[in-house]
Amino acid sequence: MFKERFSVAYTITGNKKDAYEKARDICLEQTVEIPDSLVPDNFIREHILGKIESFKKIDSNRYRAVISYAVENIGAEFTQLLNTLFGNISIKPGIRLEELILSPRILKNFKGPRFGRNGLRKLLYVRKRPLLCTPLKPLGLSSKELSELAYQLALGGIDIIKDDHGIADQCFSPFEERVRLCAKAVQRANKKTGYSCIYVPNITSHANEIFKKALFAKRHGAGGLMIAPGIVGLDTMRQIAEDDSIGLPIFSHPALQGTYVINKESGISHYALFGQIARLAGADAVIYPNFGGRFSFTREECREIIDGTGAEMGNIKSIFPCPGGGINLRNVPELIRFYGNDVIFLIGGSLFSHNKDLVEACRHFRKIVGDSR
Amino acid sequence: MFKERFSVAYTITGNKKDAYEKARDICLEQTVEIPDSLVPDNFIREHILGKIESFKKIDSNRYRAVISYAVENIGAEFTQLLNTLFGNISIKPGIRLEELILSPRILKNFKGPRFGRNGLRKLLYVRKRPLLCTPLKPLGLSSKELSELAYQLALGGIDIIKDDHGIADQCFSPFEERVRLCAKAVQRANKKTGYSCIYVPNITSHANEIFKKALFAKRHGAGGLMIAPGIVGLDTMRQIAEDDSIGLPIFSHPALQGTYVINKESGISHYALFGQIARLAGADAVIYPNFGGRFSFTREECREIIDGTGAEMGNIKSIFPCPGGGINLRNVPELIRFYGNDVIFLIGGSLFSHNKDLVEACRHFRKIVGDSR
Repeated sequence: MFKERFSVAYTITGNKKDAYEKARDICLEQTVEIPDSLVPDNFIREHILGKIESFKKIDSNRYRAVISYAVENIGAEFTQLLNTLFGNISIKPGIRLEELILSPRILKNFKGPRFGRNGLRKLLYVRKRPLLCTPLKPLGLSSKELSELAYQLALGGIDIIKDDHGIADQCFSPFEERVRLCAKAVQRANKKTGYSCIYVPNITSHANEIFKKALFAKRHGAGGLMIAPGIVGLDTMRQIAEDDSIGLPIFSHPALQGTYVINKESGISHYALFGQIARLAGADAVIYPNFGGRFSFTREECREIIDGTGAEMGNIKSIFPCPGGGINLRNVPELIRFYGNDVIFLIGGSLFSHNKDLVEACRHFRKIVGDSR
Repeated sequence: MFKERFSVAYTITGNKKDAYEKARDICLEQTVEIPDSLVPDNFIREHILGKIESFKKIDSNRYRAVISYAVENIGAEFTQLLNTLFGNISIKPGIRLEELILSPRILKNFKGPRFGRNGLRKLLYVRKRPLLCTPLKPLGLSSKELSELAYQLALGGIDIIKDDHGIADQCFSPFEERVRLCAKAVQRANKKTGYSCIYVPNITSHANEIFKKALFAKRHGAGGLMIAPGIVGLDTMRQIAEDDSIGLPIFSHPALQGTYVINKESGISHYALFGQIARLAGADAVIYPNFGGRFSFTREECREIIDGTGAEMGNIKSIFPCPGGGINLRNVPELIRFYGNDVIFLIGGSLFSHNKDLVEACRHFRKIVGDSR
């Protein structure tokens, strides 16, 4: 017992005294939840209590505190890891979860993404170039209309065709009907093109439905699954990713997660949330709003996500960043310089408005990223 | 089709022009997710697109926008309701979800809390006074030690004895062993006192374990269940609350939800998150940090929670606010004046430090809130 600890880096806002006080507070709050004066002077104080491993100035009003916890505090549950990382202190202003520094025994508990970057490339038969993804939209189209759209996109050479995340199980395009038609449409196009495009339905839904939906999608030819872990819970995504009876790549959507990242002094860093945590939760690709689009992410924040999706994490595979929004056919070359090849470009509105001929627009998109496989 | 809409009130930060632009943006982002110029001029523009129902100045830099959506945009899923309320716009700064104004057809899809205020009072045989709750802690105690603590607390007249939320399924007190021992200890005390104290284990855990844990707890005499919906997902809590084979009152813990409320210009209001949304997600009581304690909630924010837990919501029952932290035996009388009787006081550290004799300390606590049932 108590032979291994893992660490978490937090950015704490405040002057040195206050920030250090907050760091000590994290040690208590994330473990024993009692005042220091009541902590028993036995193994609980020695091991279970969090420990400040380092405390360093970042700038005049910010400090980086690295705090370690006993692996025994977690058990085998991802939920309890999340709780220890940021449960109660999510309620305290001026504390941002910056980076997970996990130890072998913690990492061993999780399988992480099933495919990761290499696995997804193999599945899609794309060796080097950036991958292309397009959403089916808008909400209100019938399943038939969406599947016709899917057919054209696949014919044009898009690699991944996903539901818009607001398309769930509405009367316009009920889930089962939509999945059947769209998966078939993509397969029909693949037969013509020889490509390996996949259809990725949005299975974000009730806790008692999501597994059924995952299995249904798999049985009816879907090639991946999109889940919004902010809505269904990160651990639900992890379970679906790790389930061998499903075995499809997972695309994580950021709906309802935005609040965690948009305030610099609280919440969770882009690096940790969309990189490290998404990987532990089994995502093979993490969708997020690109810089320069209709959301407010900066280049630096997107860089953090690239780093978090690719950083060394023991047995946990690296995954694809999937920036969307603000990507148009004109700025793709610049974005390739920024992202390199290990990226999935999610391009929606601008593709639809590019040309009356959607198939042509897709071909153009594919040509820009390098038509080879 | 399209005969009913429901509304959501958002507080938008910015000058009038920018705020109005953001309101229009919400209408698109939360529904069709395409630029206005691409929205088809048919039922999609007329009904599916969000509509600004009102737009009013709050102060020089804040506006209240009420936006309506077609009930058809939701279907029957709570997850898609959450997504429509705040999914993508959680990523946009300067937008705060303030209030849900739901319509009958939306409300009809949800059962809400099984017990609510009245049901929980009946279960605990407490007609009028505030209810008393104490956590078992700290992490590191054995199941036997926790159950001895539970016995003393129950003997002293605490109504609800819950696991500390950091106690999950660790080697110190494995879940099944702990539940067995603590539930038995509370039942043994009840036989002595004639009271109806309940033990409420923390079942926050893996998506594929949480139902098993709920059923195990029920079978072994637990009287309620604690869940952190920020960790397992709000819909997972809803499913457990609505499941007739479980049928226990649900205590919602705020771990990992703090980020949503602590920044005034973004996230979700205390009223909506800890009141309205917690109720839709099936909580019978919602735990949160009281004002004046070690967290930063203000009196006004706690007032919002009181209002949100009790506001009229059609078929959805009102629930108990359960403030914790910063509650001690001295300030309970003042807190009763603030909260009234419909409250669960969660008192931990200060009770343990009050007196060497824990049973006496509990009796004292109970006397202060009015010893009657």
